Amino acid sequence: MSSLTIKGSQISCLDALIWIEQRKKEVHVNIEKTKLSQLDLWKVNKEAGHVEHHSGGFFRIEGLDVHIRKIDGDEKKWNQPIINQPEIGFLGCIVKEIDGILHFLVQAKIEPGNANVVQLSPTLQATRSNYTQRHNGKKPKYLDLFLNKNKSKVLLDTLQSEQGARFLRKRNRNIIIEIKENIEESNDYKWLTLGQIKYLTRYDSIVNMDLRTVISCIPFHQTTEKNFTSDKVINQGNEFLSCLYNEYSYERGEDLQSWLTGMKSITDLYVKKKPIGQLDGWELNEEALSHKDGLYFDVLWVSVEIMHREVAKWDQPILAPRGQGVIAFIVKRINGILHFLVQAEIESGNFDLYEFGPTVSCVPSNHENQKVPFLDYVLAADKEMILFDALQSEEGGRFYHEENRNIIVLADDDFSTDVPNNFKWFTLRQLLQFNMYNNYLNIGARSLISSIQFLSTK
Amino acid sequence: MSSLTIKGSQISCLDALIWIEQRKKEVHVNIEKTKLSQLDLWKVNKEAGHVEHHSGGFFRIEGLDVHIRKIDGDEKKWNQPIINQPEIGFLGCIVKEIDGILHFLVQAKIEPGNANVVQLSPTLQATRSNYTQRHNGKKPKYLDLFLNKNKSKVLLDTLQSEQGARFLRKRNRNIIIEIKENIEESNDYKWLTLGQIKYLTRYDSIVNMDLRTVISCIPFHQTTEKNFTSDKVINQGNEFLSCLYNEYSYERGEDLQSWLTGMKSITDLYVKKKPIGQLDGWELNEEALSHKDGLYFDVLWVSVEIMHREVAKWDQPILAPRGQGVIAFIVKRINGILHFLVQAEIESGNFDLYEFGPTVSCVPSNHENQKVPFLDYVLAADKEMILFDALQSEEGGRFYHEENRNIIVLADDDFSTDVPNNFKWFTLRQLLQFNMYNNYLNIGARSLISSIQFLSTK
Repeated sequence: MSSLTIKGSQISCLDALIWIEQRKKEVHVNIEKTKLSQLDLWKVNKEAGHVEHHSGGFFRIEGLDVHIRKIDGDEKKWNQPIINQPEIGFLGCIVKEIDGILHFLVQAKIEPGNANVVQLSPTLQATRSNYTQRHNGKKPKYLDLFLNKNKSKVLLDTLQSEQGARFLRKRNRNIIIEIKENIEESNDYKWLTLGQIKYLTRYDSIVNMDLRTVISCIPFHQTTEKNFTSDKVINQGNEFLSCLYNEYSYERGEDLQSWLTGMKSITDLYVKKKPIGQLDGWELNEEALSHKDGLYFDVLWVSVEIMHREVAKWDQPILAPRGQGVIAFIVKRINGILHFLVQAEIESGNFDLYEFGPTVSCVPSNHENQKVPFLDYVLAADKEMILFDALQSEEGGRFYHEENRNIIVLADDDFSTDVPNNFKWFTLRQLLQFNMYNNYLNIGARSLISSIQFLSTK
Repeated sequence: MSSLTIKGSQISCLDALIWIEQRKKEVHVNIEKTKLSQLDLWKVNKEAGHVEHHSGGFFRIEGLDVHIRKIDGDEKKWNQPIINQPEIGFLGCIVKEIDGILHFLVQAKIEPGNANVVQLSPTLQATRSNYTQRHNGKKPKYLDLFLNKNKSKVLLDTLQSEQGARFLRKRNRNIIIEIKENIEESNDYKWLTLGQIKYLTRYDSIVNMDLRTVISCIPFHQTTEKNFTSDKVINQGNEFLSCLYNEYSYERGEDLQSWLTGMKSITDLYVKKKPIGQLDGWELNEEALSHKDGLYFDVLWVSVEIMHREVAKWDQPILAPRGQGVIAFIVKRINGILHFLVQAEIESGNFDLYEFGPTVSCVPSNHENQKVPFLDYVLAADKEMILFDALQSEEGGRFYHEENRNIIVLADDDFSTDVPNNFKWFTLRQLLQFNMYNNYLNIGARSLISSIQFLSTK
């Protein structure tokens, strides 16, 4: 793996993996289940029917009564718990040209819910409660460079969603700023190239969700002032890259936008707050808030202890999934150009009804009696048709050991272009163009896009 | 005005004006104030605290408790009534190439609130209650062409806002479809070119709000498959047009997007429903729902009678403004390219906090003690600096005789490019690019853009 060292990179990919491993050894995380009534600084607000922090900050566990109705009469209703964290947080990367190559300042970040404790994360990952120091915590490192942009240039800055089934209308500010000056270095941060970060997504749960979503927003299809492909060592033989600059698409952009507009126009999503103790199908008790059939996820009440330099201790609710999810794009060559099979997905917590999602996005164990379109195709794909396959974890601050299998499968030539109404074929160029604007691509689609490699790491 | 007849147009602009005048003569509209308790088919829902149609359809008059808070502590609070019409309606134009020129099928539409009764409107203008025939009304003409797109090609189709201070999160589907086949013609419809429609915006309240917003979304800056500028007779000497194809901009697109993202990130907008009888500063009685200081607008309870071929009668609430508004862009040549001074505006009913709005957007009589930035500059502008100036009316189905003065003023050369934090300079190209996506430009900005003329009518 020494060949992964690239000119100008500060460390190799192998060094990065070793760095993560070392950090992990320096840290001990202890998570223990506790009782709801003993959750320190958290309480059930009986009147409002939710679980909240005593400060009113961070997030709340609320109950939702969800009702989706289309004008053709088709409807679905269910109850569920959801995380309400209404403030827009920062997911920010600082980048800097070093030896002619753009480098990203990544952090080795400890999150209690991470199965592997430490993952690569953006330079700045802060909720508003963090960065306004609501709880007199430390000011997040490098925050000032994001707040005061005199010393930096914004390369991108958009609002993007998190998982709509888990978060109520949560959005984060996905931002990349470029600096020219040197900045104070720190033990917990290293400079990596984009090619290296993308390479590292091939390893299970090394690049965290927050860093994946930030890099997914990079408009590679555009020659921007600062061309992100200034990694320079572009692998020209890469099929994804060559498709990126080709204008051909199976569907016109206007038709893709119209498809989304049409679905939003005929669908009503009603979400009404409901006390978490009264949710149909769910049971709230001292141990957890759980689905009665053991599906979906549990909300656990946990005590966290992180021993690292200093000892940090706190209690919090955390979501633990009941099964491993599959997030997959099927891609197909149409007219010689790779196209992604996109599903329009609506979820209870979505900010604006539908978003463009992956072909498959589900936890198979939740759907034992229903057929999930294209799931079997993805899971049965021949090895040589699998372009990408790795476990990726969700946000370790809210989710306990949640990992989804991220897969990109190349379809056989005889895979039909004729797909159900809630699916359409997009080129990567089209996906990246929509992703320059707020709330078009969902987190599943963005996670998969982040892993597409067309930058050489050699 | 006979010179306004253009090759291929079906009628001249003068003919269009005469057509509107004739239609007006055939119609008699009678609007009378009535008592709230006598409003036929409408009632006060005491439990919910709003005024609603007995079917639950159309729209509701609700009360809002509004609270805007920024993280720096700056906050504003007020109460107001608002129209809640949550369903997404159609604002649709059918276009067709006739003699090599794209023509728009426009309707001479009667709306009770229009000061001049009849205005040019899109081919299809229908709420969901209309087009799903919730009240057994007639099916809107040409609806099928929009629902079943086998016979048509979508040229654009996005969701755009209405006035955020008047409508709670209302959005419409702004759509243009092109057809090849001939369609059944009708008395109330005529084919006009885009150049003609834009020319007709120079006349007070001839082109209605709905048609203005649809044509504002046309991406002239892009060479699309169907180039809308196929009016062919482009006036190359036009400064707006020549700026459209120039890539120079004072601000980078990334910085404009970041400006919007930043403001959304630091601002919370809380809107809570409040019974209309309990709104601070407002009085609800049998005559109206009115502001106690006579500001903003009244909600009136009216009986409408339209005599035209048949007689149609119904009751409804309608909003009547207390003053005439000013909606204005200041434009300035920067580096030889026209730039628009955009204000980021947040309003109570906005779907997503801030939208890009005109430089000035206010009803001066509501602000007698406060200085509205740039209002004096606009109102004091020399005649030769005024590029556009006409009254434009708001939606005549909900607003009674509401007209806003739409102005575009060219700034003096010594007008500073240094503007307050909530203002930025955009090129027309940048405005049109954002306007290809949902909810970036507000209705005021779109109204002004619709009137920018770079298509010859000669």
